[in-house]
Amino acid sequence: MQSERLKSLPNTSVCFAIKEPDEGHSKYLGSDRETFVQGFTQRAAALPDVDDFFWEKEPTPILDTIDAPIHLKNLSSKELKQLADEVRSEISFVMSRKCQPCGPGRSVVELTIAIHYVFNAPMDKILWDAGQHGSLGAVVKLLPCDQKAYAHKILTGRRSPFHTIRQKSGLSGFTSRFESEYDPFGAGHGCNSLSAGLGMAVARDINGRKNRVVTVISNWTTMAGQVYEAMGHAGFLDSNMVVILNDSCDTLLAKADGRPKMSVNALSSALSKIQSSKGFRRFREAAKGFAKWFGKGMHEFAAKVDEYARGMIGPHGATLFEELGLYYIGPIDGHNIDDLICVLKEVATLDSTGPVLIHVITRSEDDTGGNIRSDLNPNEEGPSNSSRDLLNFLETGLSRTYNDCFVEALTAEAENDKRIVVVHGGMGMDRSLRLFQSRFPDRFFDLGIAEQHAVTFSAGLACGGLKPFCIIPSTFLQRAYDQIVEDVDMQKIPVRFAITNAGLVGSEGPTNSGTFDITFMSCLPNMIVMSPSNEDELIDMVATAALVEDKPICFRYPKGAIVGTSGTLTYGNPLEIGKGEILVEGKEIAFLGYGEVVQRCLTARSLLSNFGIQATVANARFCKPLDIDLIRTLCQQHSFLITVEEGTVGGFGSHVSQFISLDGLLDSRIKWRPIVLPDRYIEHASLAEQLDLAGLTAHHIAATALTLLGRHRDALLLMK
Amino acid sequence: MQSERLKSLPNTSVCFAIKEPDEGHSKYLGSDRETFVQGFTQRAAALPDVDDFFWEKEPTPILDTIDAPIHLKNLSSKELKQLADEVRSEISFVMSRKCQPCGPGRSVVELTIAIHYVFNAPMDKILWDAGQHGSLGAVVKLLPCDQKAYAHKILTGRRSPFHTIRQKSGLSGFTSRFESEYDPFGAGHGCNSLSAGLGMAVARDINGRKNRVVTVISNWTTMAGQVYEAMGHAGFLDSNMVVILNDSCDTLLAKADGRPKMSVNALSSALSKIQSSKGFRRFREAAKGFAKWFGKGMHEFAAKVDEYARGMIGPHGATLFEELGLYYIGPIDGHNIDDLICVLKEVATLDSTGPVLIHVITRSEDDTGGNIRSDLNPNEEGPSNSSRDLLNFLETGLSRTYNDCFVEALTAEAENDKRIVVVHGGMGMDRSLRLFQSRFPDRFFDLGIAEQHAVTFSAGLACGGLKPFCIIPSTFLQRAYDQIVEDVDMQKIPVRFAITNAGLVGSEGPTNSGTFDITFMSCLPNMIVMSPSNEDELIDMVATAALVEDKPICFRYPKGAIVGTSGTLTYGNPLEIGKGEILVEGKEIAFLGYGEVVQRCLTARSLLSNFGIQATVANARFCKPLDIDLIRTLCQQHSFLITVEEGTVGGFGSHVSQFISLDGLLDSRIKWRPIVLPDRYIEHASLAEQLDLAGLTAHHIAATALTLLGRHRDALLLMK
Repeated sequence: MQSERLKSLPNTSVCFAIKEPDEGHSKYLGSDRETFVQGFTQRAAALPDVDDFFWEKEPTPILDTIDAPIHLKNLSSKELKQLADEVRSEISFVMSRKCQPCGPGRSVVELTIAIHYVFNAPMDKILWDAGQHGSLGAVVKLLPCDQKAYAHKILTGRRSPFHTIRQKSGLSGFTSRFESEYDPFGAGHGCNSLSAGLGMAVARDINGRKNRVVTVISNWTTMAGQVYEAMGHAGFLDSNMVVILNDSCDTLLAKADGRPKMSVNALSSALSKIQSSKGFRRFREAAKGFAKWFGKGMHEFAAKVDEYARGMIGPHGATLFEELGLYYIGPIDGHNIDDLICVLKEVATLDSTGPVLIHVITRSEDDTGGNIRSDLNPNEEGPSNSSRDLLNFLETGLSRTYNDCFVEALTAEAENDKRIVVVHGGMGMDRSLRLFQSRFPDRFFDLGIAEQHAVTFSAGLACGGLKPFCIIPSTFLQRAYDQIVEDVDMQKIPVRFAITNAGLVGSEGPTNSGTFDITFMSCLPNMIVMSPSNEDELIDMVATAALVEDKPICFRYPKGAIVGTSGTLTYGNPLEIGKGEILVEGKEIAFLGYGEVVQRCLTARSLLSNFGIQATVANARFCKPLDIDLIRTLCQQHSFLITVEEGTVGGFGSHVSQFISLDGLLDSRIKWRPIVLPDRYIEHASLAEQLDLAGLTAHHIAATALTLLGRHRDALLLMK
Repeated sequence: MQSERLKSLPNTSVCFAIKEPDEGHSKYLGSDRETFVQGFTQRAAALPDVDDFFWEKEPTPILDTIDAPIHLKNLSSKELKQLADEVRSEISFVMSRKCQPCGPGRSVVELTIAIHYVFNAPMDKILWDAGQHGSLGAVVKLLPCDQKAYAHKILTGRRSPFHTIRQKSGLSGFTSRFESEYDPFGAGHGCNSLSAGLGMAVARDINGRKNRVVTVISNWTTMAGQVYEAMGHAGFLDSNMVVILNDSCDTLLAKADGRPKMSVNALSSALSKIQSSKGFRRFREAAKGFAKWFGKGMHEFAAKVDEYARGMIGPHGATLFEELGLYYIGPIDGHNIDDLICVLKEVATLDSTGPVLIHVITRSEDDTGGNIRSDLNPNEEGPSNSSRDLLNFLETGLSRTYNDCFVEALTAEAENDKRIVVVHGGMGMDRSLRLFQSRFPDRFFDLGIAEQHAVTFSAGLACGGLKPFCIIPSTFLQRAYDQIVEDVDMQKIPVRFAITNAGLVGSEGPTNSGTFDITFMSCLPNMIVMSPSNEDELIDMVATAALVEDKPICFRYPKGAIVGTSGTLTYGNPLEIGKGEILVEGKEIAFLGYGEVVQRCLTARSLLSNFGIQATVANARFCKPLDIDLIRTLCQQHSFLITVEEGTVGGFGSHVSQFISLDGLLDSRIKWRPIVLPDRYIEHASLAEQLDLAGLTAHHIAATALTLLGRHRDALLLMK
């Protein structure tokens, strides 16, 4: 079989020549991310270098010839279709080995090929929105990543390291400027590609250049306000750009009561209506006008366009997009590569059309039927139940997470308190929330990436006498910062913020890390800011938050597994506001931890005891208000105070230093040291690897104490 | 004339009995803002208590009888119209005495009266969006306030203190939950009322109550993405609520090139199209169905509805709002009080219609013609040129502002560097920016309250090889925090942020204060964070920012007047990144100021010299990267280091303490004290009053130093 494959590969020798062991990839993501950009795309990357499962794969003779998009250009229609199958098979193969679902990544293969066939990346800028979710929501939540860009990555010179995706020093799960010149913009939190693309289009016009800008957005991102801001501006500026709305039926969950297939947004249903529009007709007329200059191709295009137009005549007129100023074309079958190429080709050759929106429908993997070679991989729909558990284990270290405990506690509280409601914002929804959703469907609101609205909506619910728990991952809470300030904190409205996925988040990488929330929440005057050191305390904080009715309150907790202290506790005891506790008494040196990092302080204490040092460990619980009695006690009884948090400068440690400075404690014998996250973004890796990179392991904490005590040699010994 | 007026007042004796001197109002805004809520609306407030210009006014016999909305209910149609004129006259009178424009406040008088006539506040919740701008953009920018709510304030028991608006201890310029039970939600940054109102509607449904929720939004807020998020959710939930889109022709500036009257948004033009819609017809049919139960009133309504419908039949079908799931009614003449009442009344009596959007057109003051008694007040269109200067002087203390210097410097840079472009975000636009806009119209983008898009769009421009200066007031920068993190800082894209209106902003109050930006920007790993101590340095920072091409950079400067050091400097000299300077050498005590507060440190030094103390004053310039050499020098040569900034905990002082702690400097003899803004929101007042409230005057800074030196008596003397 090997020789047969080799025969079909024109550039086999080249491919083999550059094959490297896995470790070789680490050079691409070093401390200086820029070097990655240049180094990367120059590599021929046609063959995967994962020897151990190389030969189990289906042959991919055409894909093996594609090192860069330019290699697509001479393929026939039939070859392009086969390429699509091969890319799909490649994605399935790699993802199944990683126990990861790949539905969304597979559904846009034809679209990706068509785009790269028609446009000339990297000169033409092709932007992919993140924000994709598979029909396997719960699992995908554990693995959010820009799956839509998987085919794009494979076709743009990143096939070889594709299996390293989301591993330390491997490919990012998202598009990234640091990774490839074919990624003109990082996916960030999704819904940003239209804004960034418009900026590139305007820059192109100002610079007098001629390249095209193509952004692929998902119907899922139409939840996010930024997309409307960008569309309105694009319509106003009338710059040439191509917006492809990838309307993937697999992204939105069906409602239990038979409502249309969507989770929060009335607009999405409008997308499924087939519509005619004046603007579109104008575009078609223009296209016909151009035909005399462009000849056959354009006639072909006009015919195709008419074909779509016939389906579009309906009771409605201007679409949403027309009103926002974009010319609408569609809907187009996203799995028909000929149609896609035909439409894209002609749109690409038109000048001065302003922004064009092409509405492309892709089917979810579940109902594509014959289109997908489902025999290729039994795991293609995501991991099986047992492998899901494995996956969960891999991601969290234990199957029970803080989220699980939180939702159980909240559901228990909600049984007794009818005023408790849940508002969820942010990309994806942790499957643990389904417990609350199924128990209280009328008191549960999932708002997706409409976080701005989610926060103000929560404020409105609180004004109406309810007790909203607004559950948003730390990284997505950034999207609603102004609403937290103006609509909640300034008005002292008792919204309860459950900040999930706080701190480092492992393989999701820096775009989804929750590192800034302590800093940006603690500076708000009315906010109570707290964080539990274990799951029991988290349950207590749920009870505490339910009780506070005169001001906003928030608590952050990490993504991962619980500590394991929990028994069968479900009901919490409300904590006294602003009270921490000393967990273990020691002398000379005190660790004051904020949040789950307290556990690492306890481990650090054990490590130190091997060196004959008995450290005190205290659990702050509250960043705001601070437990000033506790802090005074620690300062009076120790020579060294080390504050520890999984957050940036400006957070807990800064609030402690502010207090002990003003209180005069810092003037006396106490020596204060803050341990915070380093001043850089931590790349994707496992959580343990990230903590090591960040210098926040128990060993680091203990070593800091040793160094502070002048025992530098012991510190080095410890870190060996 | 007095006796004639008294005769027309049924409750004159009551009104006079409660008249109080101006100082009396101070009790309403004390440290505990909640007491204000109860105390306030119980007062009869029919007559203004500004005796000195009481008798110059036109008589307002009907308005004098209105202490609360309930007093409107029995007025005839004719009386309501007269009331509208009287309210307009009242607004004009008070505003003209304050040299403030009042166009937007006057244009919604009929709408306000109709709403309060039909709905029963405070049981029914009436929410007003902020975000209104008059046709006098430049002046209004200096005085942003929720003018649309002026009539609402006058009609809801706040007529008496209305003249105190935006003064210390007076009424807020915005709606405020702390001010009146008739304000169910604070206006915040605008575009939040739909989200909050939807929350209230859902809470009502869950609680099984029956009150109505009415939100008034402006076409200006359709720039903001949050409005779309909220509309999509409202359409999905199908809760009963009334959204009134106040389409005020006066809000958007005409383009110089004759394009439609709007500044950034293609959608707005869609509003001016007269449209029919299936959804609307469904609503009308439902209304007709209801008619048999409701009798005459409903028939009248159906007829009126038909009248509007006739105007609505057009080439287009579903409107944007229909696609978002709201039933659309309109457009309705916002100055025809009978029509407004008729439509509102019937919408209010319908059950189970889901969210209804009523499109109300109000004309700007400039073209209302006979509707407005323009003889009442020659100043009604805003202050004359000379009074504008006065106004400017009152607001800024000097006619030349930091904004002026910044824009001149940036325009000069842009003359030499074609790659410089400007993106402006946030409510209103400082008139100083017109210089750049008129000089380089194609390199200027005003995006209003679409700040999320503004930031990512800037990132796109930078990716396209341009040098975007993204100019956003500090308070509005909060709205794009996630985009700053994900789309700029994490990708190391060189966007230059000019953060205007940093720190306290005077009469605009806490909603527009820029107090958090040092904290939330300095924690970002790649961002260069700086602030000038005077206008010359600001100009240098423009040059510096233009030069930095490998990472993002930001600089904050205050709203007010320049220091006055500036000669004719227009071109700046790039600063060395991360370098501050010692301005005056002293001993024992060192002030390290960040930003314009350095000037107050210098004054504090003068004050201290009277007590025989020679303090050092240093200008940090950079919060990130810190000038560690400068800080080490200060620590080594002084016993006390006082960091001073006009920002919250977590900002400059925290970064300094972090460094000196890790550097071991804090362990030795240096005593560090941070001076920051207090941990509360500072109410609206003059800037000087606010600084005094915040403890950030030169006297406070000097007193801190005296206290630190143990000279408590001298400190008290100084603060006397």
